[in-house]
Amino acid sequence: MEILNTSEWLSKPRYVCGIMTGTSVDAVDIAIALFSNHDGNFKFEIIATGCYEISEQIREFIFRIISEYVPVSDISLLNFVLANIFSDSVKKLCRNSRFPLKKIDALGVHGQTLYHGPNDKYKEYMEFSSTFQAVSISALSKLLNKPVVGDFRPADIALGGQGAPLVPIFDYEFLRDSNENRIVLNIGGIANLTLLPADCKKGDVKAFDTGPGNVFIDMAVQKYFNLNYDKNGEIARKGTLIPELMNNLKSVPFITKLPPKSTGRERFSKDYFFYLIDEYSSSNTMNEDFVRTFTEFTEWSIAENIRLFAKNPKRIIASGGGSDNVFLMELLKKELPNVIIDKSDSFGIPSDFKEALCFAYLAYLTLSGLPGNIPSVTGASNETVLGVIAMP
Amino acid sequence: MEILNTSEWLSKPRYVCGIMTGTSVDAVDIAIALFSNHDGNFKFEIIATGCYEISEQIREFIFRIISEYVPVSDISLLNFVLANIFSDSVKKLCRNSRFPLKKIDALGVHGQTLYHGPNDKYKEYMEFSSTFQAVSISALSKLLNKPVVGDFRPADIALGGQGAPLVPIFDYEFLRDSNENRIVLNIGGIANLTLLPADCKKGDVKAFDTGPGNVFIDMAVQKYFNLNYDKNGEIARKGTLIPELMNNLKSVPFITKLPPKSTGRERFSKDYFFYLIDEYSSSNTMNEDFVRTFTEFTEWSIAENIRLFAKNPKRIIASGGGSDNVFLMELLKKELPNVIIDKSDSFGIPSDFKEALCFAYLAYLTLSGLPGNIPSVTGASNETVLGVIAMP
Repeated sequence: MEILNTSEWLSKPRYVCGIMTGTSVDAVDIAIALFSNHDGNFKFEIIATGCYEISEQIREFIFRIISEYVPVSDISLLNFVLANIFSDSVKKLCRNSRFPLKKIDALGVHGQTLYHGPNDKYKEYMEFSSTFQAVSISALSKLLNKPVVGDFRPADIALGGQGAPLVPIFDYEFLRDSNENRIVLNIGGIANLTLLPADCKKGDVKAFDTGPGNVFIDMAVQKYFNLNYDKNGEIARKGTLIPELMNNLKSVPFITKLPPKSTGRERFSKDYFFYLIDEYSSSNTMNEDFVRTFTEFTEWSIAENIRLFAKNPKRIIASGGGSDNVFLMELLKKELPNVIIDKSDSFGIPSDFKEALCFAYLAYLTLSGLPGNIPSVTGASNETVLGVIAMP
Repeated sequence: MEILNTSEWLSKPRYVCGIMTGTSVDAVDIAIALFSNHDGNFKFEIIATGCYEISEQIREFIFRIISEYVPVSDISLLNFVLANIFSDSVKKLCRNSRFPLKKIDALGVHGQTLYHGPNDKYKEYMEFSSTFQAVSISALSKLLNKPVVGDFRPADIALGGQGAPLVPIFDYEFLRDSNENRIVLNIGGIANLTLLPADCKKGDVKAFDTGPGNVFIDMAVQKYFNLNYDKNGEIARKGTLIPELMNNLKSVPFITKLPPKSTGRERFSKDYFFYLIDEYSSSNTMNEDFVRTFTEFTEWSIAENIRLFAKNPKRIIASGGGSDNVFLMELLKKELPNVIIDKSDSFGIPSDFKEALCFAYLAYLTLSGLPGNIPSVTGASNETVLGVIAMP
């Protein structure tokens, strides 16, 4: 008995809209793409993308839920608040891009991560790993009158996996090559790699975090220059490396740890940042020097992970905010002279909307009855169809 | 484009398992039934039922989440804890009843209500009604390797409804009659009615809470006799009515309020119970008298709502724990001499598993692509398919 009409779903190209909000909770990223099936090989075409700011009030409300003790009514409320924000944002994108909402076949929504505990082994008297991405998928479906797929991570956790990363299946499908060893690099707050050896099978794919991406760079430019990020790496370029700070950072064990491995803002936190700043400030250090050092450290930790864990890489395909940091990318190019570095845009993937596009693809896979996780990446016992589906 | 294979789903009888946990969080009620489609009229046959206790530790954990401020990780954990408890309970029922799990076509799960705020109009800076039933539907689906439908209430809330009650569509389908005006009565912690006039259409159905069901009776026998409930109403039968307390209770405005109306344990709380006990205890009152008075009040408030809001009722079909209270049902019979009172068991519905059966039916409806709410009951703008679906 087939619950889903998967063959009909796959019989025609489908417009799917992906909605992503990251751990920085600054904006809703949306990508609409047309996915098509060519005898089990998929293609996509970008139709529209949009980025919609999340208000300061909502961001604070979310950070409070993540970091403080709250009544459960706050979480109940947030599920519906996010459904409304996402619905409004999708409608805005359709209006702005003149793409009619009614042509969208389905949506894929990541939800706002409030907690991710794939390795919780003992919590009070209960032993369960868990993960929680907020948004009422059912409410979003009613507000947009569209099928919505969401809550992608719990299935993999229930099967013993980390529930993350989920982007590698997208990298595997659209960026692998029969001749080249490729590395897909995403530099967000945290940086991560997907390794795609030439002519790899799905089970050969590896993916892991390398360490901080923009997180310390952003904190430094916020503190010293009141900017959100170091545009093109111009501030870092003016600075000088602080060797003692760099040596300290290089000794962080996570960087050279054997994959699989994942990290987050808990490890590379504001507290840790301020400790480092205090410890290595002197009359000789300029503000730019910190930005420079954190930029070099991010670049080094990416390069070091590639040297240690990627065999004969031919090409890096980069995305995420950090891939727009010209100086950072120059440093990486210098350190890996034999590797070609491209941005994902050269492969038809708008660098800033890769994750939104990826969750559209995961929704497309679920409605095709196809698995979205890669066990060699997440550690789950098997491949599985991800998420839950709400009907309009 | 049809996402769901609804015609195939409806083409054969389907075994659906319903899972219910109420606000008292004492047990998981499970019912497996075979639903079949006869040209759009549905029938069901009960296959197995089971009731599985929830441990004191888990119950306390849930009550803490409901009543205190907690970290969001507790709620994330609870989603997975409940998925595991429900999965284990379903497997136990299958083993005990020798009904093979592999024959189950799908499950419907209500989830544990942590918050229900259908009328929240202003909460901090945000205006949204919301409701939250905990359990990871996706994890449950993976643990049982079965399609699972759940999260039934948010859709109705998103369409402006109360998200409750959802049982009336079950009452309408299986208990309406072409000649008799019928009342479906459920006496749980709170008591509620579904009014089914003879030959009614779906839009004619009304349903509402009448006031306390067993809530005060249970509190009184717990306090004075250290029992969980008044078996057959034997304690109440020995007591004498406390007229002053009864008069006070009768003046509660909710009882005679015009429907639609709904209430909960917030209104008929432990605090209110202890206030009443303090206020009306004297050297003349015996412990049994409180049980007697609360029993008479429950009975009176049901009878009063029937007198006020049901036109010429012919038959009451009763279910829920309170319908096993022989004394309470005798009182009701005396006060409504012209109404036949049956238990739902006479109509093939095991009184204690009616809600579990109802959520199995709601899952069956969702997988049939059919709406599960009744706008005349919930106040939603329209009928809609409820819930989210997780694929194994």
